[in-house]
Amino acid sequence: MRNIKLTLMYDGTCFHGYQFQPGLVTVEGELKKALFRLLGEEVKPVSCSRTDAGVHANEFCCNFKTENTRENEKLLRGLNAVLPKGVAVTKCEDVREDFHSRYDCLGKEYIYKIWNSKVRNPFLEGYALHYPFLLDEKFLDSQAKQFVGTHDFKAFCASGSSVKTTERTVFDCFVKRKGNLVVFGVHGNGFLYNMVRIMVGTLLSVSEGKIEKDSIQKIILSKDRELAGVTAKPDGLYLNKVFYPEVEQVAKQ
Amino acid sequence: MRNIKLTLMYDGTCFHGYQFQPGLVTVEGELKKALFRLLGEEVKPVSCSRTDAGVHANEFCCNFKTENTRENEKLLRGLNAVLPKGVAVTKCEDVREDFHSRYDCLGKEYIYKIWNSKVRNPFLEGYALHYPFLLDEKFLDSQAKQFVGTHDFKAFCASGSSVKTTERTVFDCFVKRKGNLVVFGVHGNGFLYNMVRIMVGTLLSVSEGKIEKDSIQKIILSKDRELAGVTAKPDGLYLNKVFYPEVEQVAKQ
Repeated sequence: MRNIKLTLMYDGTCFHGYQFQPGLVTVEGELKKALFRLLGEEVKPVSCSRTDAGVHANEFCCNFKTENTRENEKLLRGLNAVLPKGVAVTKCEDVREDFHSRYDCLGKEYIYKIWNSKVRNPFLEGYALHYPFLLDEKFLDSQAKQFVGTHDFKAFCASGSSVKTTERTVFDCFVKRKGNLVVFGVHGNGFLYNMVRIMVGTLLSVSEGKIEKDSIQKIILSKDRELAGVTAKPDGLYLNKVFYPEVEQVAKQ
Repeated sequence: MRNIKLTLMYDGTCFHGYQFQPGLVTVEGELKKALFRLLGEEVKPVSCSRTDAGVHANEFCCNFKTENTRENEKLLRGLNAVLPKGVAVTKCEDVREDFHSRYDCLGKEYIYKIWNSKVRNPFLEGYALHYPFLLDEKFLDSQAKQFVGTHDFKAFCASGSSVKTTERTVFDCFVKRKGNLVVFGVHGNGFLYNMVRIMVGTLLSVSEGKIEKDSIQKIILSKDRELAGVTAKPDGLYLNKVFYPEVEQVAKQ
């Protein structure tokens, strides 16, 4: 039995999120349809995570099992010919039989793009948050560093979410500027529901003085969702990288 | 009488080109509607040029006359509030009374983006040409240099176009690469209908060996449209800069 890992890239404005939902256009739904057309069998892709409606992916991983012997190069080309234009498969590789896109994931990097200019950018509608007031990226970078470490991030989790533990480790967190584009980035071992968007909303509130500066540690310790900022809209959010141990790939069978 | 110059940015996928066409969504049509809503009068914007359906603008200029005394800052904000999301006004300024967006234009820079990877990029559908075969940007840059100078560009003009003269001056022409993105750029005093897209199509034909290398000068001299390459599709084309003499702006009246 082959276990095939796919790396995807998708434009979140084209889908109602990653996860299959009957009657709606989702990334998983389109992928399953494309795999069925190509392989003639229904496969169940296991994914590294899910993304909400409007959230983008520069890199997203999933894997599925099949007896099909088609070469990866052909599978890649075939899938991209069949998939709709908002999603592409960027890599297709054989991995060891017990590889699992979610359980084996060592961490993920998200980025959040903010178009920081009085005038909106027509090319970034749906692809960045338009924020007209001048942001001080160095100040925000120093504030973002408070997220780094192993913490109970309950205050940064959408209410109603059911997870075993709300403890997560943030390895790195930064804010930087390229012209009018301010980019927030965070690399962690896992993320709670809406966690990145609440982190961004909180930093913007700190920038506006609605949340006191240097108080992010305190908000984390409070475990109180009410003390953190609002959930920033999905437009600017990109799953940017998904990390796995180096040794997953196996020789083609 | 005030003469107001507007600088626009627009996403060509949202419009049937710049020029007004009854019953179709065009940049000019939307701009006139927005100006009417804001000023309560019908104005006739004079534009630096026109762009075809699907062609983008990072910078596009037009001007119009009005007796309205609204401040430019407020006009800018008002227009951006009223205009649909594919277009934004990035600058609004008073210019001397006889300034004319087309006649006073000293030159324009176009860029053409090519996504040069076997796998398509979902974020660039409509925003770059997908070209799967590896391009040698240094070779293409050297070929592009043959366009530089004052020439009769009849071979690089769509047939059926009626202009007084097909002589134009190309000040600079280049090809460069940023990762998988290959960018063709050209700065000239004016451009014939489809000229940039035919220049790109020709360079791609040279890359494919369908047109002999170092033969662009010969094609120019032939004045024969048949000898140049196909017209590359509009997706990758951006009007990038519009040049005017430095002295246009006048003190606000």
